[in-house]
Amino acid sequence: MYQIGVDIGGTSIKIGLVDEELNIIRRTAIPFPHIGGEGVAAELAAAVHGLLAEHGITEQELLHVGVVVPGSIDPTGEIVLDAHNLGFHDVPFKKQLEAQFPNNKVYLANDADGAALAELGRGAFQGCKTAVLLTLGTGVGGGVILGGKMFSGGCRRGAELGHMQLVAGGELCTCGVRGCIEAYCSVTALVKQTTAAMKAAPDSAMHAYAQAAGLVDGRTAFECSKQGDKAAIQVVENYCRYLANAIGSLVAVFRPDVVLIGGGLSNQREYLMDKLNALLPKFVFASDLIG
Amino acid sequence: MYQIGVDIGGTSIKIGLVDEELNIIRRTAIPFPHIGGEGVAAELAAAVHGLLAEHGITEQELLHVGVVVPGSIDPTGEIVLDAHNLGFHDVPFKKQLEAQFPNNKVYLANDADGAALAELGRGAFQGCKTAVLLTLGTGVGGGVILGGKMFSGGCRRGAELGHMQLVAGGELCTCGVRGCIEAYCSVTALVKQTTAAMKAAPDSAMHAYAQAAGLVDGRTAFECSKQGDKAAIQVVENYCRYLANAIGSLVAVFRPDVVLIGGGLSNQREYLMDKLNALLPKFVFASDLIG
Repeated sequence: MYQIGVDIGGTSIKIGLVDEELNIIRRTAIPFPHIGGEGVAAELAAAVHGLLAEHGITEQELLHVGVVVPGSIDPTGEIVLDAHNLGFHDVPFKKQLEAQFPNNKVYLANDADGAALAELGRGAFQGCKTAVLLTLGTGVGGGVILGGKMFSGGCRRGAELGHMQLVAGGELCTCGVRGCIEAYCSVTALVKQTTAAMKAAPDSAMHAYAQAAGLVDGRTAFECSKQGDKAAIQVVENYCRYLANAIGSLVAVFRPDVVLIGGGLSNQREYLMDKLNALLPKFVFASDLIG
Repeated sequence: MYQIGVDIGGTSIKIGLVDEELNIIRRTAIPFPHIGGEGVAAELAAAVHGLLAEHGITEQELLHVGVVVPGSIDPTGEIVLDAHNLGFHDVPFKKQLEAQFPNNKVYLANDADGAALAELGRGAFQGCKTAVLLTLGTGVGGGVILGGKMFSGGCRRGAELGHMQLVAGGELCTCGVRGCIEAYCSVTALVKQTTAAMKAAPDSAMHAYAQAAGLVDGRTAFECSKQGDKAAIQVVENYCRYLANAIGSLVAVFRPDVVLIGGGLSNQREYLMDKLNALLPKFVFASDLIG
């Protein structure tokens, strides 16, 4: 038996074919088509069915189709309330997916929630009672495990960790409120911080790096920081302080067994982790308890 | 049958005799003696037994003794890990209480948790799945109801809502970290904000008010604000913005059915609530969902 996992993003749809032991045995991706929920479901299904056919897998051998989106899902798990980067607002996406997979069970989830669930089942959260995942990408998403289960927030929305306050009255966030974690710790925010630092330091190595790459992105400051560029080091230092501060808030609220960093920025791996772990005792309530 | 509820604070121990319908039929208080856990348990028990004798209530008619402290309790509910205002650190307070009440079931809880539980059973949280209580006093405490039950945080500590970040790198908090909600929204913080404003405005009505009261406290700015004093109005406005911002964080994380304000400052009732409710849409993620 097999399963399909689908990660829908604003630029691409990533599809994984998964075996019974939850190993990804094949990955593929198609561009994200901005054609609304029904069209997206149809193109996604075509790609999935192509993948199954390629491997000689029948519909009867497919157990589940799990789909995650970067946005908020209603408590019934049926409707994408808002996924700004997909242009989805109040889209009955689960039904649209089920129409494409009439013989399979379909799951729909927020992408950070899905990542947290995956970590719980198979990754760093295994055996955890309380755990928090922070995805640092275009925005900042959050997935929270409480009592060994997914916590999706009360009322009509999930746990929006990226919209906790970090600097009251500070930078304007995409959500319209000032000072959210997302406005300081997303890759988008890091790029802004990098660009501002480059303007202030015309002799920084970041200029050559960005020119070679063709753009300023989340890597610019980090990579130049590793080469010893002073302005880049300062950008990374400030960014990591904001992030350590944000993690401090999460620890105060949840006191989790594990905090996990996901999203594009997590590619910085040990370089980022070492800096965060060095900073955390300064920013965490009762930091003597950090294990 | 009767129950006893005890609220231990740094200045006094408040005791309530409660009937089966959870009505408080008698209240009393004794000064908090700074003599360690065993001594406190003994003095508390003497006051409780006096109260029971006064009402002709036998030990057999007493069901439970519930005690709350302003501090963190270990997950077993046995030990007060830290209650700074009581001078309790790693005190096996439940055992010390049980020694005084050998025939009664004793409960020990954090005071904000206790308040939230009381609201759930008998007050504003009745029927709530998700609810948050913020106590604004000497510090800022938090009680969180998730899935209709108390949420006490993971690992070894409870949900320390007062130590979520509000202004990264800002005012130094009692916990040693800068910028916590407590450093801006506690009554202690309000008093500091009031004192600073009074220094800057020698003609403010707050001076006469404080002189008459014999001190600057959490009422000074609020009461003078009601009288139209400009400097006081500004203090209250700033304070309420910080508080609305803090509530915004709580809503982003928990999206609760109800947020309740407790502690000394809640005596400002409608005057505070009206200001907060007017400010909240500016500071809450997806504020269109505020019911």
